[in-house]
Amino acid sequence: MPTPWTLDPDRVFSPVPNVRARARDLYAGIADLPILAPHGHVEPALLANPDARFGNPAELFIIPDHYVFRMLYSQGVPMESLGVPRQDGGPVETDPRKIWRTFCEHFHLFRGTPTALWLKAELVDLFGVDVAPSGETADAIYDVIDAHLQSDAFTPRALFERFGVETLATTDPAAGDLSLHAQMQAEGLPVIPTFRPDAAMNLADPSWRTTLDVLGERAGVMIDSLDTFREALRVRRAHFAAHGAKASDHGIISSFVAPIEESDLQELFDHGLAGTATQEEAEAFHAHMVFEMAGMAVDDGLVMQLHVGSSRNHHQAVFDRFGLDKGADIPVAMDFTYGLHALLNRYGSEPNFRLITFTLDESTYGRELAPLAGHYPALRLGAPWWFFDSVLGFDRYLDAVVETAGIYNLAGFNDDTRAFASIPTRHDVWRRAVANWLAGKVERGLVEAEDAPEMAHWLAYGAAKSAYRLDD
Amino acid sequence: MPTPWTLDPDRVFSPVPNVRARARDLYAGIADLPILAPHGHVEPALLANPDARFGNPAELFIIPDHYVFRMLYSQGVPMESLGVPRQDGGPVETDPRKIWRTFCEHFHLFRGTPTALWLKAELVDLFGVDVAPSGETADAIYDVIDAHLQSDAFTPRALFERFGVETLATTDPAAGDLSLHAQMQAEGLPVIPTFRPDAAMNLADPSWRTTLDVLGERAGVMIDSLDTFREALRVRRAHFAAHGAKASDHGIISSFVAPIEESDLQELFDHGLAGTATQEEAEAFHAHMVFEMAGMAVDDGLVMQLHVGSSRNHHQAVFDRFGLDKGADIPVAMDFTYGLHALLNRYGSEPNFRLITFTLDESTYGRELAPLAGHYPALRLGAPWWFFDSVLGFDRYLDAVVETAGIYNLAGFNDDTRAFASIPTRHDVWRRAVANWLAGKVERGLVEAEDAPEMAHWLAYGAAKSAYRLDD
Amino acid sequence: MPTPWTLDPDRVFSPVPNVRARARDLYAGIADLPILAPHGHVEPALLANPDARFGNPAELFIIPDHYVFRMLYSQGVPMESLGVPRQDGGPVETDPRKIWRTFCEHFHLFRGTPTALWLKAELVDLFGVDVAPSGETADAIYDVIDAHLQSDAFTPRALFERFGVETLATTDPAAGDLSLHAQMQAEGLPVIPTFRPDAAMNLADPSWRTTLDVLGERAGVMIDSLDTFREALRVRRAHFAAHGAKASDHGIISSFVAPIEESDLQELFDHGLAGTATQEEAEAFHAHMVFEMAGMAVDDGLVMQLHVGSSRNHHQAVFDRFGLDKGADIPVAMDFTYGLHALLNRYGSEPNFRLITFTLDESTYGRELAPLAGHYPALRLGAPWWFFDSVLGFDRYLDAVVETAGIYNLAGFNDDTRAFASIPTRHDVWRRAVANWLAGKVERGLVEAEDAPEMAHWLAYGAAKSAYRLDD
Repeated sequence: MPTPWTLDPDRVFSPVPNVRARARDLYAGIADLPILAPHGHVEPALLANPDARFGNPAELFIIPDHYVFRMLYSQGVPMESLGVPRQDGGPVETDPRKIWRTFCEHFHLFRGTPTALWLKAELVDLFGVDVAPSGETADAIYDVIDAHLQSDAFTPRALFERFGVETLATTDPAAGDLSLHAQMQAEGLPVIPTFRPDAAMNLADPSWRTTLDVLGERAGVMIDSLDTFREALRVRRAHFAAHGAKASDHGIISSFVAPIEESDLQELFDHGLAGTATQEEAEAFHAHMVFEMAGMAVDDGLVMQLHVGSSRNHHQAVFDRFGLDKGADIPVAMDFTYGLHALLNRYGSEPNFRLITFTLDESTYGRELAPLAGHYPALRLGAPWWFFDSVLGFDRYLDAVVETAGIYNLAGFNDDTRAFASIPTRHDVWRRAVANWLAGKVERGLVEAEDAPEMAHWLAYGAAKSAYRLDD
Repeated sequence: MPTPWTLDPDRVFSPVPNVRARARDLYAGIADLPILAPHGHVEPALLANPDARFGNPAELFIIPDHYVFRMLYSQGVPMESLGVPRQDGGPVETDPRKIWRTFCEHFHLFRGTPTALWLKAELVDLFGVDVAPSGETADAIYDVIDAHLQSDAFTPRALFERFGVETLATTDPAAGDLSLHAQMQAEGLPVIPTFRPDAAMNLADPSWRTTLDVLGERAGVMIDSLDTFREALRVRRAHFAAHGAKASDHGIISSFVAPIEESDLQELFDHGLAGTATQEEAEAFHAHMVFEMAGMAVDDGLVMQLHVGSSRNHHQAVFDRFGLDKGADIPVAMDFTYGLHALLNRYGSEPNFRLITFTLDESTYGRELAPLAGHYPALRLGAPWWFFDSVLGFDRYLDAVVETAGIYNLAGFNDDTRAFASIPTRHDVWRRAVANWLAGKVERGLVEAEDAPEMAHWLAYGAAKSAYRLDD
Repeated sequence: MPTPWTLDPDRVFSPVPNVRARARDLYAGIADLPILAPHGHVEPALLANPDARFGNPAELFIIPDHYVFRMLYSQGVPMESLGVPRQDGGPVETDPRKIWRTFCEHFHLFRGTPTALWLKAELVDLFGVDVAPSGETADAIYDVIDAHLQSDAFTPRALFERFGVETLATTDPAAGDLSLHAQMQAEGLPVIPTFRPDAAMNLADPSWRTTLDVLGERAGVMIDSLDTFREALRVRRAHFAAHGAKASDHGIISSFVAPIEESDLQELFDHGLAGTATQEEAEAFHAHMVFEMAGMAVDDGLVMQLHVGSSRNHHQAVFDRFGLDKGADIPVAMDFTYGLHALLNRYGSEPNFRLITFTLDESTYGRELAPLAGHYPALRLGAPWWFFDSVLGFDRYLDAVVETAGIYNLAGFNDDTRAFASIPTRHDVWRRAVANWLAGKVERGLVEAEDAPEMAHWLAYGAAKSAYRLDD
């Protein structure tokens, strides 16, 4: 008989009794705060349609989650056997029960990872599972989850309410149709869009001209020049803002955000139109446009998020076969001191400008980002991102940035996830880690005991609200 | 009624009871050792004149301290409102009570930072303040401090004695007038100069010619060539040594200290004289001259300090308005393995040469600096610098360097501060952190219990004495 | 009377009582597992000859151990006084008792280092020493060790059995004579070779032509072209595999493993033959050949180890006087994301390819290596290397890699040592650190209590067995 599988109520907290006791107290004060999810990748349609369902357990937990299937792939399990769709439409496993079984047989691979922590919290708390996944328990667990997923209590909408989400931001292309957002807001659902114009910046993408056409159509602007391109971006930003957007988001590979002379920029743009732009030209163009869009942000007040330093699609064969976001995006070293120099010098003290940075290079936390945030009024530091959205990642982040930047230059937490069902536990882990971190600092005499509850509240809720201007 | 504000006698120590108990014991053995302050930025005039006063609370704690005003600036408080003088003489707040109030209203920004730790120790221990700074308590605290500052017990000289400073080194330009040092030493005050020739190296500075003229005049050498420039440096080094200097100090942006061919060097020097040198040329010249000055150090025995990797005046607008040292000096990544290759190969095993390095790139602690110090006899590692002069900064430093370099290749602590009143607490935090670090290692069986007191003494006192040749 | 010198049975474990208790339990389950030593530098002759002896205490502990003499050198003790042989045959200390005394007089330099931890374990556990080394105790300790070394219980062979080594891999040049391995295996001694062809790749080495000649002779191939060079490598790899080799090993300075066009490669090879190749050309050639050898590994199944990023012989004067491996090999920053891009794209999902990486740049653990290992099936992460083969090094490694890569993408531990007598304690420290790390994670609720024993077993034994295909 397998050991009962239960959640440790003190998980994430220090094993040192006095720290644990204080962490527990601090956590109690923030555990039930509403969730602010100002950056993430939930599909609007999932929430817009009251009848939407999550599908089966494999569709909910495995097929769309590259955190999950990458780990099995790394140990030799073909993605095909996990139902990950191929670009060429070739055959992949379609029996969700088989996919689920393969996953459960490899569940030990996640030992010690945040994925295990999240999955366990979801399975136990949300679905009432009480045995650990394994080859033997796979089918029984499948049945438990599947039954829940077919009930009305487990629709995305029902969970949204149960989760206590105060605001959820989706991430949407510049040409995105925001009618679903409008509909949801009309129904009182606090789902807002985020302006993510990356696709429109990628001169080297063969479909860029098409992207421009759609963008122009949506903006009501015929894009045939740099200036009409800019005009379309401005129109769309305004459209997003009118639909409740508080922020834009930009994914760039290098931290160097560098303005380019207009004539040179024109040349890049022309290469894009002619279909001859190289990857390097596309990156230079994007880096310049981030600089320009910071200027637009000064005008329209959209908070600018920069997600910097992921080398996407590192594994060409996997990319060719399975497409984007399939677990081979690998971080590279960053240089924010020189990289953000031009941007921060131009806009870093503009009262209406707000910049939130995300990095995958932890060595920049204390060396570059915290000193920059401890000076420039516009800058707030984003939460640990991706691989570092983890207990130890949070510990290291707070240890590295707070001494230099304080906590009021931080942007709080965001879950940055496609995996809707994991949202509460991701926020919960952050809140536990914050409570524990503060408790440890109080017990070392480095934070005042009477300040700690307010600081916990700020890190769990207030910081995100402030950084993303959700209180405006 | 506000909570009484008191210092935790166990601050900085681990919350683990056995570690804490041992840390307390180790700390008791070193808490009252005399202070060695072999590198810092106290103004000689402050101590030379027995009648000097610190001024008012704003002048003591806020206006000159970029650790303090940068944090308020980062949250949108104009530096003008904190009384920071403008370069153009434009209007800034002059009412010290108002400045103090603004500071107190924002005191929460420092939560979790070393600045808060220092300020609290100073306010409570030195000035007897017993409530936390806030908008409500600002005036009362101001009055308490102000009254003290006007008493004879709070002159810089009186505090110098109360602090138990055994040696304090100031930092002085190459052309600096050392008569105040001579006077103080004649009076028995252990204040020594440090030779810092950076200004004389900056070929690109429009006032470089003037700097050279003053340098030449002070040295009694007409500087009209590289060789007379060198001669002037040698004369001044000897003058410093004769006035008790034990060290030189050099602030460079890159870790690459590279010798240049004489003819090329001549060209750089000529560009400087002609006023056409670029910033890059100035940096190359400086990097070369550090190499040459290491040779001079072999001859005259002055310890060479390198402070490497701060990108100064990152925010041009703030620099233009407020000048140097206004909180926008941002670290950059370093490479000491290649960067110090030439220097260490030439001088790294010269018995009379001593090099002390300071870095703002913590990733170099274990990767580069500890292995270098664990080999080259000339090299000792300087204490955590600037943003890393903090409890967690100390923890990380000791964790990163001791396993590879041991403790006998470390240069102990220096406070590197302009803020005279903060000197004791900065040393105290280091001593507490050292005691705590050793206690933790003893309790893990990684350091012998009977060795720990001697190791604590070394790190708190002996290492600085030895590294800076204060025992010569 | 000196304090008795004993080993703390709980060394390496956390001072937190509940963590310590659990660490003790987990450790008890793995402490006595056989030792797998799949990468190291023990001389085959030491074990092949049943009559071999270790020599005297200085020959065992000091003269060949650059971990030891570098620390004394860094504090001004000449290597000559430690008996380190000079390249020119010049005079060095030859009295082992004097050398030992110098070492003992400086034993305090190792406080807090892994060397101290290893030496103490060897002295106390293996040799029954019961006082700490010092000037006073040096002679007595010398006598105790020396007497043991002359007994039959302390021959290398006797210790090999006592240590419980299940497999030990030596590291051998491509042209290495494997007859000693054959002989040992015939006698039932589990000592296997490792194919290390670095010398054959160094086009810039004046003796490269000679190296090729020997290689060709051993391979039975006349090497007069790139293709015959390749053929010789293939023949030798097969010869190694036939002698039980499971792996190759490659030491490269840069992480960029980049294929070169055949015509350009031919030019490099020709420069090598002509004796005109530069260091840069040699490095480019080597980087290419690592790429090619990965292809050979796909064919013959030898696991490829990459030791990347040590700048060898940093101190030219020491190198000239004492030769290779004399304590001046200094790490440099790495970039595996771009550096291994070509290699992993070509071979990273080949079922028969296995790559194990070692780095001296800890910032790459979480940023690059763990994400890469969490994707590419071929990649396993090697244990902390060299300076980071230490308690804190292990803590940081596990903290940095497990959350992203899990534990099943790790290659376990290897001791990588020349110092045969230190093998058990090095493995013991890893096992203690692993037990302690897991205990801490269980106590924080981050690892399931019931999974921890199996995880400890994997990290202590199974991972190395699997990664190096020792179970094939």
